[in-house]
Amino acid sequence: MDLNSDLGEGFGAWKMGDDEAMLDIVSSANIACGFHAGDPSVMRRVCERAAGRGVTIGAHVGYRDLAGFGRRALDIAPDDLTNEVMYQIGALDTFAIAAGSGVKYVKPHGALYNTATVDSAQAAAVLDGIRRYGTDLAVLCLPGSELERLAPEFGLTAVAEAFADRAYTPAGTLVSRKEPGAVLHDPDLVAKRAVTMATAGEVETTEGVLKLEPASLCVHGDTPGAVELARRIREGLVAAGVDIGSFA
Amino acid sequence: MDLNSDLGEGFGAWKMGDDEAMLDIVSSANIACGFHAGDPSVMRRVCERAAGRGVTIGAHVGYRDLAGFGRRALDIAPDDLTNEVMYQIGALDTFAIAAGSGVKYVKPHGALYNTATVDSAQAAAVLDGIRRYGTDLAVLCLPGSELERLAPEFGLTAVAEAFADRAYTPAGTLVSRKEPGAVLHDPDLVAKRAVTMATAGEVETTEGVLKLEPASLCVHGDTPGAVELARRIREGLVAAGVDIGSFA
Amino acid sequence: MDLNSDLGEGFGAWKMGDDEAMLDIVSSANIACGFHAGDPSVMRRVCERAAGRGVTIGAHVGYRDLAGFGRRALDIAPDDLTNEVMYQIGALDTFAIAAGSGVKYVKPHGALYNTATVDSAQAAAVLDGIRRYGTDLAVLCLPGSELERLAPEFGLTAVAEAFADRAYTPAGTLVSRKEPGAVLHDPDLVAKRAVTMATAGEVETTEGVLKLEPASLCVHGDTPGAVELARRIREGLVAAGVDIGSFA
Amino acid sequence: MDLNSDLGEGFGAWKMGDDEAMLDIVSSANIACGFHAGDPSVMRRVCERAAGRGVTIGAHVGYRDLAGFGRRALDIAPDDLTNEVMYQIGALDTFAIAAGSGVKYVKPHGALYNTATVDSAQAAAVLDGIRRYGTDLAVLCLPGSELERLAPEFGLTAVAEAFADRAYTPAGTLVSRKEPGAVLHDPDLVAKRAVTMATAGEVETTEGVLKLEPASLCVHGDTPGAVELARRIREGLVAAGVDIGSFA
Repeated sequence: MDLNSDLGEGFGAWKMGDDEAMLDIVSSANIACGFHAGDPSVMRRVCERAAGRGVTIGAHVGYRDLAGFGRRALDIAPDDLTNEVMYQIGALDTFAIAAGSGVKYVKPHGALYNTATVDSAQAAAVLDGIRRYGTDLAVLCLPGSELERLAPEFGLTAVAEAFADRAYTPAGTLVSRKEPGAVLHDPDLVAKRAVTMATAGEVETTEGVLKLEPASLCVHGDTPGAVELARRIREGLVAAGVDIGSFA
Repeated sequence: MDLNSDLGEGFGAWKMGDDEAMLDIVSSANIACGFHAGDPSVMRRVCERAAGRGVTIGAHVGYRDLAGFGRRALDIAPDDLTNEVMYQIGALDTFAIAAGSGVKYVKPHGALYNTATVDSAQAAAVLDGIRRYGTDLAVLCLPGSELERLAPEFGLTAVAEAFADRAYTPAGTLVSRKEPGAVLHDPDLVAKRAVTMATAGEVETTEGVLKLEPASLCVHGDTPGAVELARRIREGLVAAGVDIGSFA
Repeated sequence: MDLNSDLGEGFGAWKMGDDEAMLDIVSSANIACGFHAGDPSVMRRVCERAAGRGVTIGAHVGYRDLAGFGRRALDIAPDDLTNEVMYQIGALDTFAIAAGSGVKYVKPHGALYNTATVDSAQAAAVLDGIRRYGTDLAVLCLPGSELERLAPEFGLTAVAEAFADRAYTPAGTLVSRKEPGAVLHDPDLVAKRAVTMATAGEVETTEGVLKLEPASLCVHGDTPGAVELARRIREGLVAAGVDIGSFA
Repeated sequence: MDLNSDLGEGFGAWKMGDDEAMLDIVSSANIACGFHAGDPSVMRRVCERAAGRGVTIGAHVGYRDLAGFGRRALDIAPDDLTNEVMYQIGALDTFAIAAGSGVKYVKPHGALYNTATVDSAQAAAVLDGIRRYGTDLAVLCLPGSELERLAPEFGLTAVAEAFADRAYTPAGTLVSRKEPGAVLHDPDLVAKRAVTMATAGEVETTEGVLKLEPASLCVHGDTPGAVELARRIREGLVAAGVDIGSFA
């Protein structure tokens, strides 16, 4: 089972999250590429440290929106989106390669992730950008998303991820953060869900159990509490005999 | 003899220069990488057209300053500059490679060019960024510049360029644009100087003749008059039996 | 009848349109405020020239999206949008006041204009930003838009504008630019429509005549042809005895 | 004696410093205006809270350099700098006025502060921008700076500030941060220096005592330790019978 997390989200003088701590927990690092967060110096540093610890590097591509941290849907033309995806992957790969590694997968960030989950035009634009960079790159996405559905048309491999700390609907989508109970905070419960996801390929939804079979679990590290929760998830998986390692 | 020009300097809805016309004139295209000008869609289009016509692609790296078009000196830390150079080369190379070509050289833009000509710290930072990307990249620069002087220390090849439409001091530097006569406008005179530079390796300075031996001549295309002057330079060289072709 | 046009849309080294020519044609200048176009030096220059010719100054507020020229819908939180509108008006008013004039109205730009026409949340956010700046500012908008409908709730006056060179549906909305015939190019026809709008308060739609009664006509100046068309509209109105003057 | 601090230095999702805590300590808030830090929503929030507590609002104007946090010297043309200063003051004043207060002074930030201390062209450009906004604005600056020297020529009042936690040379300039002992960390010592500055108008330099007579002391709040030090300075001043209050 892979553990992935969003890293390298500082920008200039501004910090975000604890990249160092998270690199000891995860097997895959989704590294921001400068459009919604990250700058060349942050990207280089995180690539070097990820490579040094054997953590797989992925390009966390986002909308060009530093002021909104890439969390606001942007009605960008598909061709421009394709080109922005290519640009971001190429920029990050420079640092990944210089660090002795390389970008192995792509995960859209924030609003782009949400849009590409349901919007086939933006999903196709993202996939086209990835393919033009290289068809050996995997795309990390939600099961059932347009990204997953369309990936084969672009000769790409989709890798499904799940969220141990989020409530699921019976349809397999995440309960909206606006709903009560959407985010789970009890470390024991979250760690237990992670183990069930990893060993049984199942998640308990708001109504019954769902077959999910993720290849990766997404964990967060933007608060001290989040880092601790991620650590608990890892420990829970290891204790259950699950090997932690990248899908790539 | 190589002819190089700054291309791909539009940004979003804004245009600059006539990339199409210039690609029929030059053998090397210095393509902006998004920091002082250019955006992913402009970069892709110019790379595809350059590759389609056999024009060599260079990364025109600049300060992160869209508002100032990279023409204002910025006291950036050398490490950050190195990383910004890597980022820009990598982003452009993505489009160059996808177009069936690749970045073959790097030329700093505007204020970065001027600063790296005389400031050893910024020159070294630029060269370090190029080297970390790949030592097969040439660096296009002024004869006598810090870039030229330090390039061998970084395992890089410096390529000297000259300006047929600029007046030279006896020391081989350009007469400041603030001085009268700094820029030559007579097409016949400019074309003749280009031929002398290419065939005799000489330039007539404000006091006598200087040995210069440039491997490339820089021409501009940001006004209709500039495009016409560039065309005259090319025609003059061809008429004098000079082969036009990239140094790379 | 007022004639309004989008001005001050350059940015740094990049130009757009012919501000000088348009300031001799229009009675109201929608001046970009730096978020989708414009920079402090452009804003100051256009404010000084507008004030010098007695052209009324309006704040052309847009999404924070230089790369997309404000033409891409952005799902910004209403509170943030309100604050961005305040920021932009205040910045422009500085130059308008220093030039001996002042901002008299606000017109949203591009995708913000389109969104605020139909989306009550974004319309209300824009109006809230205007009100917090000052309730003596008019809001220039489409008849039937959410901006027009909600303006009174914010104590603001809506001013309706029309487009002489655009085809209208019987419902009073603009025919999409994706449809054939959406944009009219015949100067005689466009000038005649402008006169009918100004004198009879009517527009010929794709099916019959519609009562419209605009207080302002929007003209463009981003191409030489557009400037000439705008000039023809003004001449047609003057020849028909229509006084050209700001609504403010 | 006035206590001033740099506030509102977050940007979008990124935080910096503890604005809330500092607003209980200082009498003047230097609020970032969006060029080196700050965004419209941050600006509005800090203005409202400053106004609510009777803290005087100043415009902390900086170079347009979010990536460098305004800490890198930029060779901007004086006219452009003047216009950028006007833009920033006007944008911030919008929020200050809406909060029932108003911008009362201007303090350049970071590299602009350092440059305008010694460079008469940039100092004059800043002062020109302030004057064009309003001559009732004070300019907060170093004693002996070009800003202080030139302020009267622009009809402006300069207010001198000092730093209780920085070592001074006998000439009255700050010991460079690159030198050992440049920054003082002992809270008791720093508080004592603040009291001497406020009551005797003196500072102990590296060689003897210097007459300084600042009207304001600058304190920082970007780390928990900094907030605590600022609190100790305030308490020390109050215990010594010094009234804390804005110079404006």
